[in-house]
Amino acid sequence: MPHTTDPLDELDAFLLELNRAAADVILPVFRNAAQLAMEDKGSVGAFDPVTAADRGAEAAIRKRVAARYPSHGVLGEEYGADRTDAEWVWVIDPIDGTRAFVAGLPVWTTLIGLRHQGRPVLGSIGQPVLGEVFIGTAGGARCVTAGGERALRVRPCAHLADAVVATTDPFKLLDERELAVWQRVQAVARFARYGCDAYAYAMVAAGFVDLVAESSLKPWDIDAAVPVLQGAGGLVTDWRGGGIGTNGGQMLIAGDRRVLDEALVLTREVARSP
Amino acid sequence: MPHTTDPLDELDAFLLELNRAAADVILPVFRNAAQLAMEDKGSVGAFDPVTAADRGAEAAIRKRVAARYPSHGVLGEEYGADRTDAEWVWVIDPIDGTRAFVAGLPVWTTLIGLRHQGRPVLGSIGQPVLGEVFIGTAGGARCVTAGGERALRVRPCAHLADAVVATTDPFKLLDERELAVWQRVQAVARFARYGCDAYAYAMVAAGFVDLVAESSLKPWDIDAAVPVLQGAGGLVTDWRGGGIGTNGGQMLIAGDRRVLDEALVLTREVARSP
Repeated sequence: MPHTTDPLDELDAFLLELNRAAADVILPVFRNAAQLAMEDKGSVGAFDPVTAADRGAEAAIRKRVAARYPSHGVLGEEYGADRTDAEWVWVIDPIDGTRAFVAGLPVWTTLIGLRHQGRPVLGSIGQPVLGEVFIGTAGGARCVTAGGERALRVRPCAHLADAVVATTDPFKLLDERELAVWQRVQAVARFARYGCDAYAYAMVAAGFVDLVAESSLKPWDIDAAVPVLQGAGGLVTDWRGGGIGTNGGQMLIAGDRRVLDEALVLTREVARSP
Repeated sequence: MPHTTDPLDELDAFLLELNRAAADVILPVFRNAAQLAMEDKGSVGAFDPVTAADRGAEAAIRKRVAARYPSHGVLGEEYGADRTDAEWVWVIDPIDGTRAFVAGLPVWTTLIGLRHQGRPVLGSIGQPVLGEVFIGTAGGARCVTAGGERALRVRPCAHLADAVVATTDPFKLLDERELAVWQRVQAVARFARYGCDAYAYAMVAAGFVDLVAESSLKPWDIDAAVPVLQGAGGLVTDWRGGGIGTNGGQMLIAGDRRVLDEALVLTREVARSP
């Protein structure tokens, strides 16, 4: 029997194409003050950072998926669930880190993941301003730029005291007990970074950040990052050290098991039931 | 009498040259895992993120200043003070945001300012990964990229509740009373960003961030940003609303006087004597 081609190879190339399509919609809007101000008027009252770019990019991705793989399902932040019981389901967040986007900071990302039979098997974290796509499967991860590709690999880190740690917003996304735990984690750690959303996960995969602790995550915030992290040798668990399922919530992302285990001693106290 | 050329025009061109010289030293080291790891071994005990790039870039800048303007003084984070009683004094921080640098995040900056008779008159905030130099004098500020230049202008913002606010590290750089004030500021504001150091000042000048509150600043953390902010219509004060002098400390950077005034109501309570 001839060896069949891995379907992920074809899907990997398609995923890079989806990243380009999203970037074409999003980049013209980034730092376009007039468009951002106009969009903001639409959100009366509470802060809603969703931009026209977010919606336009998700529409562009959905259109390409429908044309190329009409049987595939799609779950997106903007347009919801579509055939999510399909064998293959794309999970999309066109602009993860909309607050960074609105503040002009190039650490927002485009997240596109692919589940096979409910399990994330392929994913990408794209940053179009920097021209980077961090892409991976359980078998390996790499960073693709205009200048070429390089393999992604987490770095060893023996102790939380040596670790660079990150969380997105300690005051807005963590509850009071989670914040108290975070303050202990960051006090022990080498230093902490904030506000990077999924770009921090890419930096774990690239070997520059050692631990990210998040809460209040949605599936589209993490699904795309899971294969990138796995392929780079990283770990993704809930705050008890268990599997993360597909519903989001509390997450720990680590490059080294030893740092994860130290963090779990602290986070377990405030872990919510899965 | 013929109209003489503004010496700042010549110095502006020289400042862009200094930014290129610094970038040539720093860029090859950014995200170079092997070099960063080696450097880290030199710092026993406390975290010291100073890299060879930081020192090399400051040396490159000092060499160029000495060759072109031998009478000028220099004050730098790495090599200290040299003729700081001169009429013109350069104030340098080759890598502001070394923690961002070490974490692989492209929001560190190269800060180069020029004082005339003790007052900051010209300055730049450079981000070489993004190919940006935010540069200005009291007369105007602009962002220079490979693709061209665009004028920088702060945006109007009527209320702190509408403001995008930032601080570098609430837990490490603010004392307990300052942190309590910061928590009130960020709770009122639209949303907060962290960990951007001087890149956040550039985003105030560009009209995407409305207020930055910092403490524990050194002169080389702020001097270069003052002319960029002034030229873009921004405001820089201490936490009482007074002039900032040349010693660093507590700083507020704002795009709109109304947001600054609201923040001052909160920060004044914990303002230290100048």
